[in-house]
Amino acid sequence: MSGSLLVDNIGELVTNVAGAGEGGPLGIRRRAAVLVEEGRVAWVGPAAIAPAADRRVDADGAAVLPGFVDSHAHLVFAGDRAAEFAARMSGQPYTGGGIRTTVAATRAASDDTLRETVRRLRAEALRQGTTTMEIKSGYGLTVADEVRSLRIAAEASDETTFLGAHLVPPEYADRPDDYVGLVCGPMLRAAAPHARWIDVFCERGAFDADHARAILTCGQAAGLGVRVHANQLGPGPGVRLAVELGAASADHCTHLSDGDIDALAATRVDGSDGDGGHTTTVATLLPGAEFSTRSPYPDARRLLDAGVTVALATDCNPGSSYTSSMPFCVALAVREMGMTPAEAVWAATAGGARALRRDDVGVLRPGVRADLTILDAPTHLHLAYRPGVPLIRQVLHNGVPT
Amino acid sequence: MSGSLLVDNIGELVTNVAGAGEGGPLGIRRRAAVLVEEGRVAWVGPAAIAPAADRRVDADGAAVLPGFVDSHAHLVFAGDRAAEFAARMSGQPYTGGGIRTTVAATRAASDDTLRETVRRLRAEALRQGTTTMEIKSGYGLTVADEVRSLRIAAEASDETTFLGAHLVPPEYADRPDDYVGLVCGPMLRAAAPHARWIDVFCERGAFDADHARAILTCGQAAGLGVRVHANQLGPGPGVRLAVELGAASADHCTHLSDGDIDALAATRVDGSDGDGGHTTTVATLLPGAEFSTRSPYPDARRLLDAGVTVALATDCNPGSSYTSSMPFCVALAVREMGMTPAEAVWAATAGGARALRRDDVGVLRPGVRADLTILDAPTHLHLAYRPGVPLIRQVLHNGVPT
Repeated sequence: MSGSLLVDNIGELVTNVAGAGEGGPLGIRRRAAVLVEEGRVAWVGPAAIAPAADRRVDADGAAVLPGFVDSHAHLVFAGDRAAEFAARMSGQPYTGGGIRTTVAATRAASDDTLRETVRRLRAEALRQGTTTMEIKSGYGLTVADEVRSLRIAAEASDETTFLGAHLVPPEYADRPDDYVGLVCGPMLRAAAPHARWIDVFCERGAFDADHARAILTCGQAAGLGVRVHANQLGPGPGVRLAVELGAASADHCTHLSDGDIDALAATRVDGSDGDGGHTTTVATLLPGAEFSTRSPYPDARRLLDAGVTVALATDCNPGSSYTSSMPFCVALAVREMGMTPAEAVWAATAGGARALRRDDVGVLRPGVRADLTILDAPTHLHLAYRPGVPLIRQVLHNGVPT
Repeated sequence: MSGSLLVDNIGELVTNVAGAGEGGPLGIRRRAAVLVEEGRVAWVGPAAIAPAADRRVDADGAAVLPGFVDSHAHLVFAGDRAAEFAARMSGQPYTGGGIRTTVAATRAASDDTLRETVRRLRAEALRQGTTTMEIKSGYGLTVADEVRSLRIAAEASDETTFLGAHLVPPEYADRPDDYVGLVCGPMLRAAAPHARWIDVFCERGAFDADHARAILTCGQAAGLGVRVHANQLGPGPGVRLAVELGAASADHCTHLSDGDIDALAATRVDGSDGDGGHTTTVATLLPGAEFSTRSPYPDARRLLDAGVTVALATDCNPGSSYTSSMPFCVALAVREMGMTPAEAVWAATAGGARALRRDDVGVLRPGVRADLTILDAPTHLHLAYRPGVPLIRQVLHNGVPT
């Protein structure tokens, strides 16, 4: 679609450009408009002096946000685990072992089946305002199945993550060193051309610090950025390892020691242009997982008070968190994790962009990708104030109204 | 719309007719179809032998449920309290005092403003599968404002509740007895023709047991059924009063003694036709209120294990629970209140119908109102398994697809 487009009559515009308006980091402008040209934001300013455009979307006084940036999702899988979920809600603990169920189903599925699931979930997330969505492999765990997972992921997202080290698959149960060798060698070589990131599930029962370090280091040598599943089910070495390797994000962060938080905080760099700075390793919190495994939530307040940059993401996957809803994660973060609505909205947009080291999404200023979410509500507060309600009225993705 | 309509190719049909299929009280049928004629269910059975119809809706293997019955909602109000919500999330406790803010805004609003809010929220709830929605007055608290609230409520629902005893309004702060006299006298006389139910907020800071009993008894004498806001913010006499007066429902039930539970359980009557029976006074749980006031949840498990019939409702209101989403309440009930997904789905449909003493909604069998929700999911489990995701694909209300 060509030509310019003006999103006009915005009651509250969250820009995430600190200093550009009220609300501190949210940079809120009132009675604003956004001009879109060729898929990019061309101008942001007061509605009263907005430039002319070929077309116009009337926000009718509503709040407009940057599209959500969901930096942690596992969409390439087959089958569902509704029965496992129901059993867990009757008291069975979550151990991560159910991942093997999904691995078996995924290996047995056709490409088209996997592609259709990715398409369905990506579309569902987009309807809920998610305009950037990272997608991991990790349910294939053979060279061929990891590569096809990443190929299919890459059809739906430019943020793809190689998670060959999700679990040691059953056929390597007695020789995990051999599986690490496979991941670092042939699997990585085949996967790297289709991935931007490498990730490891560093957890008791999955990969220990030495194995995780070996895999992530190989990934870095192959040109991939690092992210780590860290400290989800209990205390562990994941967060320290993420910091040691300069990871973009340590994800989950549910069980943190003071030393873990100090390590994250020590990655802080100063900002400029009114930006208060950030930590190069972001703590990405995934409250959907704690909701659906009935586990204690991570303490976002403690991280924020220590100066750690926090992102929110869905962890969308069929086992521990089968939600694609960033608004739901925002509401949970406020109810359960001590975040203010403003902090949660920032974490779900600009925070996710930081976790993916992107400066062209998660903010609204000239030059960035024109990803906007128009709410069925007058303020960003409503995402937490009206939990569970589908509040996304319209989404613009790459400047195109959906 | 005339002519017959067949909802066909249903993967899982929740009928809530105990004994009609699997799943105990849910009465689940597989590969089913539902015939609709003149706004009513005319036939329920296997898709393979479904009768012919003028039109067909293909459920495409999805789950189909009776429409949700939301038996507790406060939709007639003006303004919002997003700022109060944000302050509360920063640590300020919920006392119910903010109701006065909404009373002032409601009194100052035009009829059309109130009507538009009711219309907007009712439509929002319908999109989320709610086909029956009780609507209370209670933000007017003058004769004229309560009557207009009920008139407006009655335009949107046949389940209207007179809640003149929501709080003692400021102008009666020093003479609550006089306000009770007003509610029992001129206000009730004017309100009763527009209401099916009478309700009282029986709570410290609102109405004590003597005042609540006086008001509810007058309401009964005027032909209204009884429901009670009971034991929300602390232990109190509300539940016992509800049982004493034969109320259809005691709502909230967050702080219950063993004696309160025994009293509810003692209202149990036997069922027939495979129905396990129910309590004539239903415990209606409103987890959206606990979510949005960061309060401890009611213990549904304890009530269910005692044999008490449990309903789930939204408590949709601008102060303590601004959600209109029954799926969200189902997910919370499973995560936080010890209900199984099946119990929660039953409570949000058949349970709500019990709480409104309706046998023509909340179930799917010949003769009932054709209120059906088609999910974007293969089973009812997904409502809890996929929290926050808009899973309502299509709704039939009075047999009409929306």
